[in-house]
Amino acid sequence: MLKVAICGASGYAGAELLRILSGHHGVRVVSVTSEKSAGRSPVEIFPHLSKYGDILFEPLEPAALLEKADFFFMALPHKASQPAVALLHREGRKVVDLSADFRIRDRLVYEQWYNTPHEHGDVLKKAVYGLPELHRTKIKMTSLVANPGCYPTGAILGIYPALKSGLASPDGIIVDSKSGTSGAGRQSDTRFSFCEVNEGFKAYSVGVHRHTPEIEQELSLIAKKEVTINFTPHLLPVNRGILTTIYLKTTKKLATESVISIYEKAYRGEPFVRVLGHDELPNISAVKGTNRCDIGLKFDARTGTLIVITAIDNLVKGAAGQAVHNMNLMMGFPEDTALSTLAAFP
Amino acid sequence: MLKVAICGASGYAGAELLRILSGHHGVRVVSVTSEKSAGRSPVEIFPHLSKYGDILFEPLEPAALLEKADFFFMALPHKASQPAVALLHREGRKVVDLSADFRIRDRLVYEQWYNTPHEHGDVLKKAVYGLPELHRTKIKMTSLVANPGCYPTGAILGIYPALKSGLASPDGIIVDSKSGTSGAGRQSDTRFSFCEVNEGFKAYSVGVHRHTPEIEQELSLIAKKEVTINFTPHLLPVNRGILTTIYLKTTKKLATESVISIYEKAYRGEPFVRVLGHDELPNISAVKGTNRCDIGLKFDARTGTLIVITAIDNLVKGAAGQAVHNMNLMMGFPEDTALSTLAAFP
Amino acid sequence: MLKVAICGASGYAGAELLRILSGHHGVRVVSVTSEKSAGRSPVEIFPHLSKYGDILFEPLEPAALLEKADFFFMALPHKASQPAVALLHREGRKVVDLSADFRIRDRLVYEQWYNTPHEHGDVLKKAVYGLPELHRTKIKMTSLVANPGCYPTGAILGIYPALKSGLASPDGIIVDSKSGTSGAGRQSDTRFSFCEVNEGFKAYSVGVHRHTPEIEQELSLIAKKEVTINFTPHLLPVNRGILTTIYLKTTKKLATESVISIYEKAYRGEPFVRVLGHDELPNISAVKGTNRCDIGLKFDARTGTLIVITAIDNLVKGAAGQAVHNMNLMMGFPEDTALSTLAAFP
Amino acid sequence: MLKVAICGASGYAGAELLRILSGHHGVRVVSVTSEKSAGRSPVEIFPHLSKYGDILFEPLEPAALLEKADFFFMALPHKASQPAVALLHREGRKVVDLSADFRIRDRLVYEQWYNTPHEHGDVLKKAVYGLPELHRTKIKMTSLVANPGCYPTGAILGIYPALKSGLASPDGIIVDSKSGTSGAGRQSDTRFSFCEVNEGFKAYSVGVHRHTPEIEQELSLIAKKEVTINFTPHLLPVNRGILTTIYLKTTKKLATESVISIYEKAYRGEPFVRVLGHDELPNISAVKGTNRCDIGLKFDARTGTLIVITAIDNLVKGAAGQAVHNMNLMMGFPEDTALSTLAAFP
Repeated sequence: MLKVAICGASGYAGAELLRILSGHHGVRVVSVTSEKSAGRSPVEIFPHLSKYGDILFEPLEPAALLEKADFFFMALPHKASQPAVALLHREGRKVVDLSADFRIRDRLVYEQWYNTPHEHGDVLKKAVYGLPELHRTKIKMTSLVANPGCYPTGAILGIYPALKSGLASPDGIIVDSKSGTSGAGRQSDTRFSFCEVNEGFKAYSVGVHRHTPEIEQELSLIAKKEVTINFTPHLLPVNRGILTTIYLKTTKKLATESVISIYEKAYRGEPFVRVLGHDELPNISAVKGTNRCDIGLKFDARTGTLIVITAIDNLVKGAAGQAVHNMNLMMGFPEDTALSTLAAFP
Repeated sequence: MLKVAICGASGYAGAELLRILSGHHGVRVVSVTSEKSAGRSPVEIFPHLSKYGDILFEPLEPAALLEKADFFFMALPHKASQPAVALLHREGRKVVDLSADFRIRDRLVYEQWYNTPHEHGDVLKKAVYGLPELHRTKIKMTSLVANPGCYPTGAILGIYPALKSGLASPDGIIVDSKSGTSGAGRQSDTRFSFCEVNEGFKAYSVGVHRHTPEIEQELSLIAKKEVTINFTPHLLPVNRGILTTIYLKTTKKLATESVISIYEKAYRGEPFVRVLGHDELPNISAVKGTNRCDIGLKFDARTGTLIVITAIDNLVKGAAGQAVHNMNLMMGFPEDTALSTLAAFP
Repeated sequence: MLKVAICGASGYAGAELLRILSGHHGVRVVSVTSEKSAGRSPVEIFPHLSKYGDILFEPLEPAALLEKADFFFMALPHKASQPAVALLHREGRKVVDLSADFRIRDRLVYEQWYNTPHEHGDVLKKAVYGLPELHRTKIKMTSLVANPGCYPTGAILGIYPALKSGLASPDGIIVDSKSGTSGAGRQSDTRFSFCEVNEGFKAYSVGVHRHTPEIEQELSLIAKKEVTINFTPHLLPVNRGILTTIYLKTTKKLATESVISIYEKAYRGEPFVRVLGHDELPNISAVKGTNRCDIGLKFDARTGTLIVITAIDNLVKGAAGQAVHNMNLMMGFPEDTALSTLAAFP
Repeated sequence: MLKVAICGASGYAGAELLRILSGHHGVRVVSVTSEKSAGRSPVEIFPHLSKYGDILFEPLEPAALLEKADFFFMALPHKASQPAVALLHREGRKVVDLSADFRIRDRLVYEQWYNTPHEHGDVLKKAVYGLPELHRTKIKMTSLVANPGCYPTGAILGIYPALKSGLASPDGIIVDSKSGTSGAGRQSDTRFSFCEVNEGFKAYSVGVHRHTPEIEQELSLIAKKEVTINFTPHLLPVNRGILTTIYLKTTKKLATESVISIYEKAYRGEPFVRVLGHDELPNISAVKGTNRCDIGLKFDARTGTLIVITAIDNLVKGAAGQAVHNMNLMMGFPEDTALSTLAAFP
């Protein structure tokens, strides 16, 4: 049994890790940390975690944790994650970091968008960007995975086959995303109170959202040239789910069916990507609670635009589920261990 | 034009007062106070209040306000309201107080349930409980109205005709209420964040909610004996509305139609009460944004129980709308001035 | 591997059976029936059922089904279920019937409330009411289980310990229930369209809901006398979940802690009931997608009333989950097989 | 008092017309038609329309209506509207048609996208497209207004100043819209049932939505060349509101403030358009129930893209409110008559 610790476990991503790992037969959660909930059990904070009455949150002390666990999920805020991850990594522990701190390979880009210095450039170089569909081999061999952001997961998976195959131009890409409110985390902020969000809908951080450079980094790697995108996030009055509508200029005219074939080929064998058929479009309700990304495709011959629409659960494929997927890869568990449950719809 | 001030105007009740008064041709809002939003305009805090860009929130200074306005809506937290209302009242200003501070006639009961002393017992004696359907004459003649709580409004209006007519027993009354989340006010509290409330439903403050003595006070006046009730509030994942389901033991068997007649008679001529017909049941969606209370009735012959169901908008009939109704009565405006718009459904 | 058929599988209960059984290692779904969806696969109707692309809905032909499967979940409308269940039962197949047709032991009561004759009284006599917490032993030994209704499950589990122990009087019981909209089934009816339900809340079928005699039947068995209750269902603007608030007159005064002890004792060892601690109240969001019933308790000393509040997922503990629990009991599988996943909150 | 008839008044747009006109002092609703609700009153269908208990729906008989009313709002389905509108127009009545039948000036384009012949080309030529901000003068002088579609209203108002001023290129325009569910009308269709929509989000009719040619027609008039756009509608789990995110390629680099100035100038004096300031973004919750269009602007210098975001209430500015605005213009009432109420937020 792999001994697992979850640091920063009192937020929604931490709670999802606990939920998912409760169904994983190869691991045991030996430690959960939270500064503000120290001394309480997960079930006190999250009544739905009924199996977690026997473990208590403790303050984060990396040195003490080192002795307790072999595998670490880090769900700390960015910046706070840097020193903790660096220590664990240097001591030879395996880590999946859910923060943004080790996602951006170019330290200067990180420092510019996150407005804070990166003080562990050596560790940053070792980190692998944990999108299994793109980097499975590297993930299997690393001891440090930077788990992707929620928006980047939906965006990159939607664009990858079109860009890789040369079907779409890397210029003028538009990514219009709509996220459920759990993406804002579990926080006490009037802006995310029920009455302010319910029956509302708005865009936010237009042109300045921090997931932009993360998407651009991966697209640039695929396109083998620098890619700059428009990224517009919106806040949906639902608990979970991200729907991302992507507009790509194509290099030639194609039938939608041909595009579907290209995507199916690119994702053949992938356990967590489903390419939908002609005239099928994804809905966030079909992926909630699951680690799956659904992709719908439509070539608009009138305008020469390929419209790609992806749906994920921001807390699962966009956070905790992908983190467990990465752990499965790093530890040699079957990939879908603890990740094969279906969505509870409606 | 009556010069009106609204103190504590940056919450939802304050915003509703501004919305409603924007349609009142006899008044002008000359001052709005808010400590934390001082220096900003209502439209900055509430983008929907598009007509309020020219007035700025200012800190509450009762002495200065005295000179500016003739009529005061006080939407301060309980306890904070006591000295402000007392000062305004002693200086001869007309006041509708939306807090709980002047609703409970028995000072000891107030002190017990609100856990704070009442330091203005003399002013308390002058206050009239502002439920127009019960106390219209007194409201017209007073200069200080204690505006009823949201739950009490729906509960008392549902019970009044049955108790007054002797149809129902004053013993064993059960009031099961379900309120939209705006009833919790505009606040930054994780418990009222979107994700915690949405797709959830729960009871809270079972047996200990502070609106209990307020309901009991008015029912006791009607029954001419001390009435003790069960009151259970629940939190609904909607913005607005309170549905209250009331169980009354009847003193005799009656057809539902006869009960309807008794209620219709009791509320004849009331501009803001609608007694529904046989087999009609109220829905909060039909009263949202309005000052109306809808009442549905059903006599269950199997159990000898009269079930009364009322629906109000907690922010309008349960707060700001009733406050304006009280002002209309106190100032001699037609009762429905600024209160006659229909609900925007759906 | 147990060969299982699901009849009437294109509704929400059927979809939940498919979801839950996809995680059951001891069974294989060999047939799904639906008249209107015949020829299509479950994943075409329900995109979230991604594992069900290889099986097709077929019209219900009981005789043909007899040869294919060993265990039958029947999710047909009431009345339609009668002949199909009777045939399967007479041919020696094991059946869990999710309709109301075999729940009411008194045929005349069934005929009165459901307004249709019961033509299989002999089979009715063999059926066991499938609430495992009350009838586990009988369920293990029967080949025909009448799966309880959603409201009755939450109501009976909330009242059972108080009535059984003599703590509460069987007279004057009030059951005030609030159900998510999936309780109405998957149907095209303007009354259940999004705009009519969202931001609304109402009671319905006051005093005449068909689950009333089902609750009364079980309570009468517990109390060993005829029990008549008030039952008021309400429609919640959420997908799933039933919260039931129950008012019981007690025979003596007790501390809430003592009541909790009585309930804990009554449900000791039950895998799917959780009695909450003092000052804890259930929320439907903590049980969604699970087979658990959460119970909160409060003795109101002011009125001598015990308030019991239960939360279940109407589609799981209130339908498909309880059906699988019953199958597990009938077939000797561990009780929680396929039923141990936690809620995905938020 | 202007005598007004509403044909097809039992849908959501009809109900909104009744709501809005109840506050219009210059008109009297003398007739409401509905085939399926004939003989019932509006308040029976829509309990919130409490002032409409005295009038009954009647079947549509244009010839009889001619005698009763002077002004007609037509809220019939497309195709059905053609002959009725044509008759009323030929008989000299004033008409605002809320259907799509008289919006598309090019009959062939209409026939292609709506897949039905247009049999009243002569009347079509007389119709004015009723977007007051673009066609106020013509609207004042016509007797037949084709009221714009909901999506086109939000899209055109967002693009108009940028295109008119030459700031944006007419090529490569992307319109990504998200609409509340009332946009689908009041209908019994499983796809729009509460459980299917709630907690879900999806795109639909990608590349083929019928509002596309309507948007293109007006943009082409502004640009004085043929404009082809990408238009992607999405279904939001809210009752009301459309948020439209528009991506425009600019012809030069500009500060966001300069763009704001251009928009403010273009809409100076418009009673129902609000251009938001720098760093302000619209939210559908601020316009619900109102006839206002809020516009937010952001120039993304990284990509040379102008992002315009507009928010309207699809049932008001997108349907009934704009229809009343058009009536006010046609009849010489002050423009904002019955249209000046603020949103009831939250």
